[in-house]
Amino acid sequence: MFKKILIANRGEIALRIIRTCKEMGIKTVAVFSTADRDSLHVRFADEAVCIGPPPSRQSYLSIPAIISAAEVTGADAIHPGYGFLSENAEFSRICSEHGIKFIGASAEMINSMGDKATAKETMKRAGVPVIPGSDGLIDTVEEAKELAKAIKYPVIIKATAGGGGRGMRIIREESEFDKLWEDAKMESAAAFGNDAMYMEKFVEEPRHIEIQIVGDKFGKACHLSERDCSIQRRHQKLCEETPSPALSEELRKKMGDAAIAGATAIGYEGAGTIEFLVDKNGDFYFMEMNTRIQVEHPITEEVTDFDLIKEQIKVAAGIAISGQNYFPKLYALECRINAEDPANGFRPSPGKITNLHLPGGHGVRIDSHVYSGYTIPPNYDSMIAKVIVSGQSREEVLLRMKRALQEFVIEGIKTTIPFHIKLMDDPTFKSGQFTTAFMETFDLSDL
Amino acid sequence: MFKKILIANRGEIALRIIRTCKEMGIKTVAVFSTADRDSLHVRFADEAVCIGPPPSRQSYLSIPAIISAAEVTGADAIHPGYGFLSENAEFSRICSEHGIKFIGASAEMINSMGDKATAKETMKRAGVPVIPGSDGLIDTVEEAKELAKAIKYPVIIKATAGGGGRGMRIIREESEFDKLWEDAKMESAAAFGNDAMYMEKFVEEPRHIEIQIVGDKFGKACHLSERDCSIQRRHQKLCEETPSPALSEELRKKMGDAAIAGATAIGYEGAGTIEFLVDKNGDFYFMEMNTRIQVEHPITEEVTDFDLIKEQIKVAAGIAISGQNYFPKLYALECRINAEDPANGFRPSPGKITNLHLPGGHGVRIDSHVYSGYTIPPNYDSMIAKVIVSGQSREEVLLRMKRALQEFVIEGIKTTIPFHIKLMDDPTFKSGQFTTAFMETFDLSDL
Repeated sequence: MFKKILIANRGEIALRIIRTCKEMGIKTVAVFSTADRDSLHVRFADEAVCIGPPPSRQSYLSIPAIISAAEVTGADAIHPGYGFLSENAEFSRICSEHGIKFIGASAEMINSMGDKATAKETMKRAGVPVIPGSDGLIDTVEEAKELAKAIKYPVIIKATAGGGGRGMRIIREESEFDKLWEDAKMESAAAFGNDAMYMEKFVEEPRHIEIQIVGDKFGKACHLSERDCSIQRRHQKLCEETPSPALSEELRKKMGDAAIAGATAIGYEGAGTIEFLVDKNGDFYFMEMNTRIQVEHPITEEVTDFDLIKEQIKVAAGIAISGQNYFPKLYALECRINAEDPANGFRPSPGKITNLHLPGGHGVRIDSHVYSGYTIPPNYDSMIAKVIVSGQSREEVLLRMKRALQEFVIEGIKTTIPFHIKLMDDPTFKSGQFTTAFMETFDLSDL
Repeated sequence: MFKKILIANRGEIALRIIRTCKEMGIKTVAVFSTADRDSLHVRFADEAVCIGPPPSRQSYLSIPAIISAAEVTGADAIHPGYGFLSENAEFSRICSEHGIKFIGASAEMINSMGDKATAKETMKRAGVPVIPGSDGLIDTVEEAKELAKAIKYPVIIKATAGGGGRGMRIIREESEFDKLWEDAKMESAAAFGNDAMYMEKFVEEPRHIEIQIVGDKFGKACHLSERDCSIQRRHQKLCEETPSPALSEELRKKMGDAAIAGATAIGYEGAGTIEFLVDKNGDFYFMEMNTRIQVEHPITEEVTDFDLIKEQIKVAAGIAISGQNYFPKLYALECRINAEDPANGFRPSPGKITNLHLPGGHGVRIDSHVYSGYTIPPNYDSMIAKVIVSGQSREEVLLRMKRALQEFVIEGIKTTIPFHIKLMDDPTFKSGQFTTAFMETFDLSDL
């Protein structure tokens, strides 16, 4: 087992990883930017190394700074968390070259799943259903228009290097094609330095459902069931739950089997997530694979009792998994608490937390790196806490979440708590019958 | 179902009950003494009524004040929590007479189990093993000495009205009998207004293991397995776990069956606990039955996913239980965090909490009514928080608890956290091979 793990991340996920390392008797090294001196991940690690100032490219994205920190402290492994360098093939390769175990996917695996067109092709060959679309990249707008006619409008064009909604456009008719094509290419060139595009049939009002899988180096893979992440705003997840109210037992099993087939086909090692769109007819289509831990992983932990970070570390250390699939008997829900003002277009609201009291009690888990007196820096994403609840039924979980959110006291900044409280009372949300379009019509004016 | 429940208690258990009521859509009324104005149970209840000043007999033990509060607010049920009036037959009866449902045992049941000699006799008749001892109360010291000779020293004499270690003495030889007999009688007369005594064979170095049971008004009862409460100091529990490392599956089943036999024999309704002593040979003896929720109930909740307060409320409302026994597949541990200085004989340390940060993350639950800036009044028991952790093995749970305790920041007062951290590293505790005598030799000098 590893002696010392460097956590190449910040905020709640850095603290999350430190917690598991402590529970495994593994020493930890935190890295931090000058803006994050006072974060709890710095306080709770065994060692902490400042790796530069914000913005992230000078610190959390600086491969040389992080490798140096690992070498100076004698860390034998690096956990990248999510975001930042977690799906950076170059970083994975450099860690390898320095004899430091990267707790994540190999450079080759990251490349093959990071390029969305390649990923889709790979999954298709493994028998995983994919959305009808271009056979790889599309070179010209004429070629694109021709394909759109064949697979029928609406279609969606996506930057192969894209993510988080950028470099992506929905096209509903041929007349708007040229403009949207140009927009998407320019946006992705600017954001990712790569304007290669592909196209898919646009599945209207789908659900976003992902399967958590874990594979080991012995070629074994299992799944830990699904997470429903359909409550999104501009492709940013706000609230996730498991099991999905939209899946029958049969569909759950089919999607799990498809995810395992995909993971096995590529010899996937570690924790990963295969994201699907599920339409009204129960047809599902591969969207993408995330070769890292997800923000929403705790809901899976709450219903399976597995510690997914521990599983990641064990697999990276060469330990075999049990290989058993898991179908949850409990229900869990996560609300992402962001320092944003939901009544004002979710505008970021960094600043000092003058008073903080976190909810507690039965079935409530809090993952957070903030505390009373902490100043949220404006430089990073605005998530400050995850409230995760579990219970014996979806109804119990929704009521418990509302109770927990009502206990949450945070002063000095605006947060998304009022939005989540309203969400728990929303008839459509309560019914379980919603799609990824849910937020488009959600009334935020009375928050 | 009840519309509004008054919680006749304070502190963490009052908040615990409010949480479940909120999750059931039941309105809540908090009662509070003038010393508890700023407690969270007052803030989180729908209504709050001041019922008088400390000490407790003028407020939390004042039956007229509490009944008035219930009548004024229109509460249709009262939950008494633990301690205070939770096992007061008079209170249960008066609630009944006022048409207010007492969420606990009937006056008759409280009387029959509250009188320890009667309780023992009742259980013996139901086939539950009891410790050899007096057949009911003992009138004279001569009679007591004769019996001690028959059942063999050491013996323990106990006040029938006693509790919390008061009115209780261990006698190891006849020469010390007269003095200890007088001491115990005087102590119990002073504390309980009743000096009636009974005697038992003293089981040396036993484990304290209790079975959680739930019964309904249809005569059905089930158990939710055991809690091991052997880590005690002066008969006060410090740390509890489930499952007990001392029980084989066979013994667990036998003790569960005995508890069900006892509960069924008396037609027990509600949540209750049957406490046993278990000796080295795996023989077990009925000690007493608690006709209320226990402080340590959350560890059972964490391994069964049941909400025991919800079960209490449902049973009180006449809803049938499933009747299925539960054998845990997970492990859970609770540390009671008291405002006491463990390095100075656990001396109470009330005062203002100048800074508070509670642990979080996977497998960690906190039940607490305190917050940053809260002043702990000197008038009540010193428990300020319960840290409850769960996990897939006892080893995981101990490591997780240590991690959680190390995250716990509390400034301005002394607490028992350093003691619990040391406990988690103790070889005997880690081995699982300990008895109720454990604390007698635990070194507190380096805390």
